[in-house]
Amino acid sequence: MKNEIAIDIEQAAAFLDLSPSRFSELLDKKVIRQNWDQYNNIFRFTSRVSDIDAGSVLLDNDDSFELVRGFPKIRRAMLIEPAIQANFSDNATVVVEEKMNGYNVRVLSYKGKLIALTRSGHVCPYSTERAQNLLNKHFFEEYPDIVVYGEMAGPENPYVRKDIYDIESLDFFVFDMRRKNDGIALPISERRMLAGKYGFRQVELFGEFGIPEAASKIGDIIRELGKKGHEGVIIKDPNMVLQPIKYTCSESNCADLQHAFKFYNEAGRDYIYSRVIREGFQSAEWNETEEELMERCLRLGESILRPMRESIKEVQQGTRVADESRIRVKDKKTISEFKFYLERLGLDIVFSPARKVGDDYIVDIKKINNSTSDKTLGIIRGQLWS
Amino acid sequence: MKNEIAIDIEQAAAFLDLSPSRFSELLDKKVIRQNWDQYNNIFRFTSRVSDIDAGSVLLDNDDSFELVRGFPKIRRAMLIEPAIQANFSDNATVVVEEKMNGYNVRVLSYKGKLIALTRSGHVCPYSTERAQNLLNKHFFEEYPDIVVYGEMAGPENPYVRKDIYDIESLDFFVFDMRRKNDGIALPISERRMLAGKYGFRQVELFGEFGIPEAASKIGDIIRELGKKGHEGVIIKDPNMVLQPIKYTCSESNCADLQHAFKFYNEAGRDYIYSRVIREGFQSAEWNETEEELMERCLRLGESILRPMRESIKEVQQGTRVADESRIRVKDKKTISEFKFYLERLGLDIVFSPARKVGDDYIVDIKKINNSTSDKTLGIIRGQLWS
Repeated sequence: MKNEIAIDIEQAAAFLDLSPSRFSELLDKKVIRQNWDQYNNIFRFTSRVSDIDAGSVLLDNDDSFELVRGFPKIRRAMLIEPAIQANFSDNATVVVEEKMNGYNVRVLSYKGKLIALTRSGHVCPYSTERAQNLLNKHFFEEYPDIVVYGEMAGPENPYVRKDIYDIESLDFFVFDMRRKNDGIALPISERRMLAGKYGFRQVELFGEFGIPEAASKIGDIIRELGKKGHEGVIIKDPNMVLQPIKYTCSESNCADLQHAFKFYNEAGRDYIYSRVIREGFQSAEWNETEEELMERCLRLGESILRPMRESIKEVQQGTRVADESRIRVKDKKTISEFKFYLERLGLDIVFSPARKVGDDYIVDIKKINNSTSDKTLGIIRGQLWS
Repeated sequence: MKNEIAIDIEQAAAFLDLSPSRFSELLDKKVIRQNWDQYNNIFRFTSRVSDIDAGSVLLDNDDSFELVRGFPKIRRAMLIEPAIQANFSDNATVVVEEKMNGYNVRVLSYKGKLIALTRSGHVCPYSTERAQNLLNKHFFEEYPDIVVYGEMAGPENPYVRKDIYDIESLDFFVFDMRRKNDGIALPISERRMLAGKYGFRQVELFGEFGIPEAASKIGDIIRELGKKGHEGVIIKDPNMVLQPIKYTCSESNCADLQHAFKFYNEAGRDYIYSRVIREGFQSAEWNETEEELMERCLRLGESILRPMRESIKEVQQGTRVADESRIRVKDKKTISEFKFYLERLGLDIVFSPARKVGDDYIVDIKKINNSTSDKTLGIIRGQLWS
């Protein structure tokens, strides 16, 4: 198998500033993994290697190499006021942009066409078709050394389906532009200007605030976003030198729980715990009245119990618990490519036959959750918990 | 160190039906561990060995051996009706007794005095003093081959402090009697009769119910127990041949969460998850009205958020989060023995000076939760979550 990896080890290693033996070892251990089919010149980092984050991607252009840096992990504020004070103390201001609820992709031009890389560094066929239809190619010709980082969001989203935005299908919202190789980000004003010029949709900009007023402004923004069911904000250094931090709405934390508890037997314990903990800190920081606290407690409790009860009743009525989503493509070939892609990732999913709607094809996707269905069925038949 | 273990390996191994080399190996690996000081003829099983459960205890009486079986793990019903049908289908009836919220101890006579073994098989000096003062010694003289299994419950409880029972200090409630060596349990009626005859307090007996009516009866009992803040029930085969199962009140699950979230940074993810899941199943089985469901959601949410908010506020005000309990002893020596015992178990606790109340000494015990206090303090100072 090793021989199939046709990459010049000496040169690739030199490009990454690694020894050839180290590079070979990383290939052998699948820390650096090759993509398949027409993308077999693309290699992704499955974990961090020296200063190269997991999810980074090495492009082998035959005569040269390029490195696309992964999405930097954005750390989370639990108490917004001290977090801003401690993390941006050297700044005069912070910029606040919306954190959207979708999935991250990086878009760049590869062999003359746009491709979309997921957070882990895979080339997603569905996102790629979308990027090709949504984004102005000229940008990538003018700025070949820039990678566009953004969020794919909307109802026709096979990963994180959300109807909370005013989006009919799935759209791409730019939140970052970074240089290839070193991954240095453009200052926010420059990125927004460029994105605007090329007609890219961008995540919403709420403003640039002085450090002393930022926490209170963000509190107001978060409350408004929460009412609309939106996720939250990213707080950024205008120059993108200091690391951004994130902060989310209670309603969004609870929506995450609601989805997780539908599939309660697969719900990650840490996933649940972390969302619950956020609620406690937000309640403490906002000095909530007794009435506001009770509302929050009820919201949290409902987000846990309602979906569980629903799943149990579904199984009692003889159905199996499933996660449903939908995709919309222009090229019918993308459907089979995307299905093959999901299967390669090890997902067990059912695609409905494609139906034609205007110029598009729509496919419904169903992921049966056997774990929760089987566990529930067992309990209904008298199984004990453990 | 090995030489300090003065036990006749050949004879002990033969008694346990193990080979001498296997027994030696279990001692070496500390699967069978020796107690200390005056109890160094007592050995506890730290994990299961063939059919001997963890927590079982081997007594070396110089000329003979005795085995005290551990507390059998009682499995939990999630949906009470199918659980009873499936687990007691061969029975005409089940007996329902109260599951109290305290800690398990086994009492037996050892070298002419009563001792109390904890769930893990340690000799607890505090519980031992209590057992000696609470239990009629004649029982153990009359029935030397019987071990009494019960719950230590009440407010003066260093492990699980509960003010929910009508107990001034700490009392012992019998829930089981088992033969030494094979661990076979007495039928419930015989055990209750014997306990009654010797004046032992017993867990409450709610009745013996036919299988078809049991689930509905238990539902009523659970609702009543819940209102009083009690924990739940154990459903037993009258002859104690089939394994008992347990079922708990929503209010008790929530009280557990309330305590766990006070120390949110140490709260076990599985501990939280399992209690939350119970609520979902109870709500589904009881076919709750919208109003009842909302009450349950609110109760669950409050049990999570109120204690967390309280802890955050305490740390903001400069105190550290602590777990407080209290013990009451007759013999002052028990205090230092108990302190030494907790320290040997690796607990970091602070004992107040003893104060004399009547014939007793009372000591307040404080266990500072550094993990939650430090984490909270960090966040108050601007630390990010991860």
